[in-house]
Amino acid sequence: MAEIQFDPTTHPHRRVNPLTGEHVLVSPHRTKRPWLGQTEPPQQANLPEYDPKCYLCPGNTRAGGQQNEKYEHTTVFENDYAAVLPPPGPSAPPAPHPLLTTEPVQGGCDVICFHPRHDLTLARLPVPDIERIIEEWSSIYRKRGGQDGIKYVQIFENKGAMMGCSNPHPHGQVWSLSAVPSLPATELDNLQKYSLSTPPSTAPRGPLGRSCLLCDYVTFEVSVAQAEGRVVLKNEHWVALVPWWAVWPFEIMLLPYKRHIPSIVHLTLEEKTAFAQILSQITIRYDNLFSCSFAYSMGIHQRPVPPTTDAVADDQDEENVAHLHLHFAPPLLRSASVRKFLVGFELMAEPQRDLTPEQAATRLRDLPDVHYLNAPKTADNVSA
Amino acid sequence: MAEIQFDPTTHPHRRVNPLTGEHVLVSPHRTKRPWLGQTEPPQQANLPEYDPKCYLCPGNTRAGGQQNEKYEHTTVFENDYAAVLPPPGPSAPPAPHPLLTTEPVQGGCDVICFHPRHDLTLARLPVPDIERIIEEWSSIYRKRGGQDGIKYVQIFENKGAMMGCSNPHPHGQVWSLSAVPSLPATELDNLQKYSLSTPPSTAPRGPLGRSCLLCDYVTFEVSVAQAEGRVVLKNEHWVALVPWWAVWPFEIMLLPYKRHIPSIVHLTLEEKTAFAQILSQITIRYDNLFSCSFAYSMGIHQRPVPPTTDAVADDQDEENVAHLHLHFAPPLLRSASVRKFLVGFELMAEPQRDLTPEQAATRLRDLPDVHYLNAPKTADNVSA
Ligand SMILES: [Zn+2]
Ligand SMILES: [Zn+2]
Repeated sequence: MAEIQFDPTTHPHRRVNPLTGEHVLVSPHRTKRPWLGQTEPPQQANLPEYDPKCYLCPGNTRAGGQQNEKYEHTTVFENDYAAVLPPPGPSAPPAPHPLLTTEPVQGGCDVICFHPRHDLTLARLPVPDIERIIEEWSSIYRKRGGQDGIKYVQIFENKGAMMGCSNPHPHGQVWSLSAVPSLPATELDNLQKYSLSTPPSTAPRGPLGRSCLLCDYVTFEVSVAQAEGRVVLKNEHWVALVPWWAVWPFEIMLLPYKRHIPSIVHLTLEEKTAFAQILSQITIRYDNLFSCSFAYSMGIHQRPVPPTTDAVADDQDEENVAHLHLHFAPPLLRSASVRKFLVGFELMAEPQRDLTPEQAATRLRDLPDVHYLNAPKTADNVSA
Repeated sequence: MAEIQFDPTTHPHRRVNPLTGEHVLVSPHRTKRPWLGQTEPPQQANLPEYDPKCYLCPGNTRAGGQQNEKYEHTTVFENDYAAVLPPPGPSAPPAPHPLLTTEPVQGGCDVICFHPRHDLTLARLPVPDIERIIEEWSSIYRKRGGQDGIKYVQIFENKGAMMGCSNPHPHGQVWSLSAVPSLPATELDNLQKYSLSTPPSTAPRGPLGRSCLLCDYVTFEVSVAQAEGRVVLKNEHWVALVPWWAVWPFEIMLLPYKRHIPSIVHLTLEEKTAFAQILSQITIRYDNLFSCSFAYSMGIHQRPVPPTTDAVADDQDEENVAHLHLHFAPPLLRSASVRKFLVGFELMAEPQRDLTPEQAATRLRDLPDVHYLNAPKTADNVSA
């Protein structure tokens, strides 16, 4: 029997996520099935600049009774219904059975309003406003990460009604915990194992001159010819790509590729500006993909907490095995209303996708870099 | 400072899932926040017994052009747009980088119609009809699991528009693959490790007289006083419980507790009948919880494929380290339309829940065992 030649756009296959050890099943032949669903006209902006009922708008009163500042750029407050409570906490109770252990957790949950304007998401904010958000992230990460007993700080944004986010006012959250959560713990563990087991390549390196999984990965990705690769956008310091192991149709990983950077507090001023620029560019392309305010969850993975002392040089500090990166997990698949569900086989066995990461990267790469709501009107984009 | 006494209904804490090694963050104090959302009247049945446009109803034509049998109990056909394709497949291509490996996968995807009636889900089918579904599951598991190159068979049901399932006709799926997917592989690995590292208790045991994680766990759960425990329902052979590590608000694990059973083909006739009875009881309570057709994903985890020979005794076969169990992952949280989203912190860090598993089990346990659509009308349940 003649050998069949593997074709990544035709043959079902699995790919491994080296950060988690998990697989994704790719079924590229299914993108060839007919699509009979709806397509939609571009969403128009219909949010007010200020909403008197929004609990995040400047000067308004929140459910807990507190009043927001009349903030002009960004503001931060503690979540009135936080998922964790500040110390002191109880000690662990005795386990009724070795399989039923309980680990008490303390910490705090902060909300960051990105901007006073109710209607402007990252995709529509000027780059200097995004720089202010990055400064706010750095400052909360430093403050919370320096508190007694805090072992991990998770910065994230959850955007869109489709993601269960009921308030369109641009905002993110920061949860600080006395334990490192499962997913970042697994990623850090795999970064650590890789650094100890893989001989260094010509890519940048992590602390102690050891190899870094993400430095190696991203160095390879930026070396691939653009048309065949997974890179969506790249600037002087950062690259946005659809990772080889992407689960969500238009998933993006954003990370610095020129040097090993453990956290946002390790960024130079120039790297921060480039970070703001590429965040703006990613979110504009996301909105342009289906002409809508694109829903996603975004999270920053980095060093669990920032260094508290200068006594140890960055390149000698084993905690710096972390390589700063952002995950964007957006559910939309085919239009502003047709989403992917992670259910059935995916909940019970493993994630599955039809569109390949390379096809998704091509789609995103080819989009205009001007937000559709700001684009000059042409015969093509005027809605009826 | 006085020691704080741990209270599982007040203090945030983490629990570990020993089948996966993953944690869940429990924030029980948040169930005390005010709920201002809607409550809804009971959903009435409004589906026809036969829908001429349904591609699963008897005698109808599917998108691919094939015609369904005029089946009277259950029927099985291959999915017209399967996620995997039958062998032969290509061999693995060379990896462009060690982090970018590709594993070709072959297999098949079957659809099982549970019943000719378009409007009757598991919750409304008589027990003998559910017994027929269990026979069909056994027979596909045996058939697909015996095919050349098939290493794993995943039986599952995805139910409800909320889960992206567009057809209410009662049906499930079976995906057979040339590889063991991530989640069952992790569970099997943890069952194996436990059997080799944990001295046997007085609970039933797995093959070779070794301890079984699920035998030990479920033996403990059925020994807990009902009011304090996580057991929802129990019969002669099976128990349905909200596991200690549940992620979804009303998640259920269903498993046999009297002896170690590796797969559905190892069930006695009596155990199968008891299985059908408890499946009926679970799905009735689920529908009764919010007076609606309750959405969920359900999956059967068991031995990856059935034994192909009788030459090895069941209790000598290491493959029998699997302990048959079903996971029910339902998204609803507070009403027929208020769901939990696994987003933000949960996608980027780890799953989080407010309601404790013990509180969820109490809610489910206290529900009537007659389906709300079949209950005698009273002043309380007649909708306006
Ligand atoms: Zn690195
Ligand atoms: Zn067992």
